[in-house]
Amino acid sequence: MSRSGLIIAVSGPSGVGKGTVLGAVEKALASSDPASVGRSISATTRKPRGEEKDGVEYYFKSTAEFEKLIADGEIIEYDMYCGNYYGTPAEPVRKMVSEGKVVLFDITIEGSLALKRFFPEDAVTIFILPPSMEELEQRLRGRGTEEDDVVRARLSQAKLEITRADEFEYIVTNRSVEQAEGDILSIIRAEMLKQSRHDETANNLE
Amino acid sequence: MSRSGLIIAVSGPSGVGKGTVLGAVEKALASSDPASVGRSISATTRKPRGEEKDGVEYYFKSTAEFEKLIADGEIIEYDMYCGNYYGTPAEPVRKMVSEGKVVLFDITIEGSLALKRFFPEDAVTIFILPPSMEELEQRLRGRGTEEDDVVRARLSQAKLEITRADEFEYIVTNRSVEQAEGDILSIIRAEMLKQSRHDETANNLE
Repeated sequence: MSRSGLIIAVSGPSGVGKGTVLGAVEKALASSDPASVGRSISATTRKPRGEEKDGVEYYFKSTAEFEKLIADGEIIEYDMYCGNYYGTPAEPVRKMVSEGKVVLFDITIEGSLALKRFFPEDAVTIFILPPSMEELEQRLRGRGTEEDDVVRARLSQAKLEITRADEFEYIVTNRSVEQAEGDILSIIRAEMLKQSRHDETANNLE
Repeated sequence: MSRSGLIIAVSGPSGVGKGTVLGAVEKALASSDPASVGRSISATTRKPRGEEKDGVEYYFKSTAEFEKLIADGEIIEYDMYCGNYYGTPAEPVRKMVSEGKVVLFDITIEGSLALKRFFPEDAVTIFILPPSMEELEQRLRGRGTEEDDVVRARLSQAKLEITRADEFEYIVTNRSVEQAEGDILSIIRAEMLKQSRHDETANNLE
């Protein structure tokens, strides 16, 4: 039985707890089969720092190489930050999916939607909501050192982002890490059972 | 937060273990919230037997009443057996879904597809496969007293039915009750998280 893998693209406002939840999901998947999970690695044109290795922290590319990938349609989404390109190359993701892996992305809204456009069959988009705006504000303040106006700016940004939740296929409310982790694991399990992803047809049953 | 419920229509060949798996699913759902599960009750024109009560084993209808329901488009699917109608009335299902219940159906292939046509937004169709045809044959023989030609006829019927698995939205292979139960519980949980079923929008978060 060979099934193709899945791309799980998770977005949500700053402070909603995406990183913690996705870490728990990755750990749960890896504990049943370490080979079943893939980690997406970004490409960048900035220089490696310290001990950073190509293909571990980032794929390090020259600007010419990066721009050729863009021109070839081989960069799923990219951005420029401090004069350097950062983006998601398609080929490593394509390879992990063909190996049947679940590839997890903690990514911007635009990044999730770009993944869905690039891999319409294999990508699943999930938006994480806070239980309430009060709770999100507490979590943002709980980070500690932020000034009031920084928290207010982040909250406004969060409200804007939340209005885009309906562009995603699934919506998970993060009431607790366990519940949000369970929701995402259920989505992954259910998506794997979709008829369109199933090749265990009548023919190979007989 | 009010969400509408779900209709889970499960089909599969005779001997595949649908009844056992759905029983386990119903028990699991009821153990976390008894009010969350609904049971579909068929309507029939046959007379009640023994202690049977209207609205418990069946909705007992006169032929005229049943035919009026058919004419009104209020019977989702029906069949005639030994001169009596048997069918699924729409109204009780509609009511349970509006109450947010998960309504489980152990139903024929045609019944599942009819439920999907009748409730395109709320119904989810699942086909249960045996791990292999050998395993299905063993399970059919394991029932005990059947003659060889009866088992052979059921196997031919099963093969025919299995070719229709690709008309369903999800395909679950019944390797064990626990695994198939877990698969169906994951499908239910994931379907509840679909953006289209979500009314916890940005507006009512603010």
